[in-house]
Amino acid sequence: MASMLLSEDQIQVKLRELHGWLRSGNEITKEIEFRDFVHAMGFVTSVALLAERSNHHPDIDIRWNRVTLTLSTHSAGGLTESDFNLARAIDEL
Amino acid sequence: MASMLLSEDQIQVKLRELHGWLRSGNEITKEIEFRDFVHAMGFVTSVALLAERSNHHPDIDIRWNRVTLTLSTHSAGGLTESDFNLARAIDEL
Repeated sequence: MASMLLSEDQIQVKLRELHGWLRSGNEITKEIEFRDFVHAMGFVTSVALLAERSNHHPDIDIRWNRVTLTLSTHSAGGLTESDFNLARAIDEL
Repeated sequence: MASMLLSEDQIQVKLRELHGWLRSGNEITKEIEFRDFVHAMGFVTSVALLAERSNHHPDIDIRWNRVTLTLSTHSAGGLTESDFNLARAIDEL
């Protein structure tokens, strides 16, 4: 099930399949730098569409050309399949 | 000039003309809650267009239905007319 907490081993395996995501406790985060604000917002808009489609929403911080995404499944209290599915979809943008 | 630091008195006067913005040192912030993520992103997109038009960009934090905006003029090291102009335009959205 997408909402079950992953084991530490599962998290480590899945983390290695992602690009540029860092583990921080119950969350995974990715910071991406773009050419400028226009390109950062283009990316954020794409992420927002994926998030809404999957009904799973990262925290999104925008600092001009830098975007930081944070994923966690708050309802489960940690990292689940949903987080890694969305992270992978974001990596493929 | 839009890039000159405002005096404490000027900041207090301008702050009273805004809606829901809080002063925090060299910054002003506003947190707004929306019905859901779709409405939050609609607002963020509008803010992004105003920001790009005025070439002045707030920090934007999105937490599902909550958006926090932070304005400061980093090049001037504090609050300037640019921050309040953009804050006012955002209030009028």
